[in-house]
Amino acid sequence: MPERRKSSTSPDLLAAALFDVAAESGLENASVREVAKRAGVSIGAVQHHFSTKDEMFAFALRTLVDRLLTRLAESSADADPHTALFQALSQLLPLDEQRTREAHVLAAFAVRAATSEPLSEIRRTTLFTIRTGISTVLIGIGTPEAETRAALLLSTVNGLALDALGSPAMYPPQYLDHALETQIRLTLHDAENPLASVGLAS
Amino acid sequence: MPERRKSSTSPDLLAAALFDVAAESGLENASVREVAKRAGVSIGAVQHHFSTKDEMFAFALRTLVDRLLTRLAESSADADPHTALFQALSQLLPLDEQRTREAHVLAAFAVRAATSEPLSEIRRTTLFTIRTGISTVLIGIGTPEAETRAALLLSTVNGLALDALGSPAMYPPQYLDHALETQIRLTLHDAENPLASVGLAS
Repeated sequence: MPERRKSSTSPDLLAAALFDVAAESGLENASVREVAKRAGVSIGAVQHHFSTKDEMFAFALRTLVDRLLTRLAESSADADPHTALFQALSQLLPLDEQRTREAHVLAAFAVRAATSEPLSEIRRTTLFTIRTGISTVLIGIGTPEAETRAALLLSTVNGLALDALGSPAMYPPQYLDHALETQIRLTLHDAENPLASVGLAS
Repeated sequence: MPERRKSSTSPDLLAAALFDVAAESGLENASVREVAKRAGVSIGAVQHHFSTKDEMFAFALRTLVDRLLTRLAESSADADPHTALFQALSQLLPLDEQRTREAHVLAAFAVRAATSEPLSEIRRTTLFTIRTGISTVLIGIGTPEAETRAALLLSTVNGLALDALGSPAMYPPQYLDHALETQIRLTLHDAENPLASVGLAS
């Protein structure tokens, strides 16, 4: 007997359904059909909001990125630079179940960006925003090579998240914490004024 | 008119066909049907070698990893540590067309490892092998925190490759070169004997 499906929904509920499907069984399984099924709505209800799968993907990625950027900005107010960077960037590491799901879906979108211009544009803007936040902190305390070290710190976090994805036992939370601490210490090496208070959100 | 397809092939040719499909249009499009089409063989010819898609994926990832590990080991003989690490790890960065295709497919497999135990096992072994090679170099020249810094250096490279995938204009080859140089310099900071000759392959 076919399930009874609702004929209307909201883009946010569909993005949440897409996120659940992608986090549990991979972005490659997040078809319009599967997302509709997970959201308990008809395929037509999905198509009412998104005329293509690409459009649905772009909306879902933007929703995820907005959530992450909000947490990044909030987490780092009024702390010393090392703590501010640690609190902000640990939002991107798989340190608990929610962040593990987010890191998985974010990495899947990053790979998909190689073959999708709309996703690529969202990712570019996201990386640029986070890199700017990091380099503002680094410049504020007189860190040498601030721009390059900011990009490296972000890539290290993205790489740690990617490496931990398929090997969680090799990269448990305590290890990821320690690795991030170490990279921040290397990043801040030779900063002129490493203890100045500079919030990432400022 | 249907194309005439060969009814036999080799696993290596199928892995090469899978790699081409994944590099050009994403791993999500590398179905048995698409791989057979690209290799110019029948679906049955693929199924003769691989009874499932997962088996085909695992063989293709192993083939790619073997190629990369061979290049990594070869590239670093008889050089100083900084040069040895740079030459080896630059094999994993999208510095030319071939490495861009490899980095794309490797990252796609890394994400897929989150939901596939056979791929996860291959990735775990690969990361462990490369990390061991790096930390051998770092330990050889008395680098503090050698194991952690080795893992960080590899994650940085994997993260740079991932970030460059969807944003090649933001991470052009010269920039990636410079970023890798900088991370290696940060990694070797405070090593006791930074100029000793220690090959990655030794």
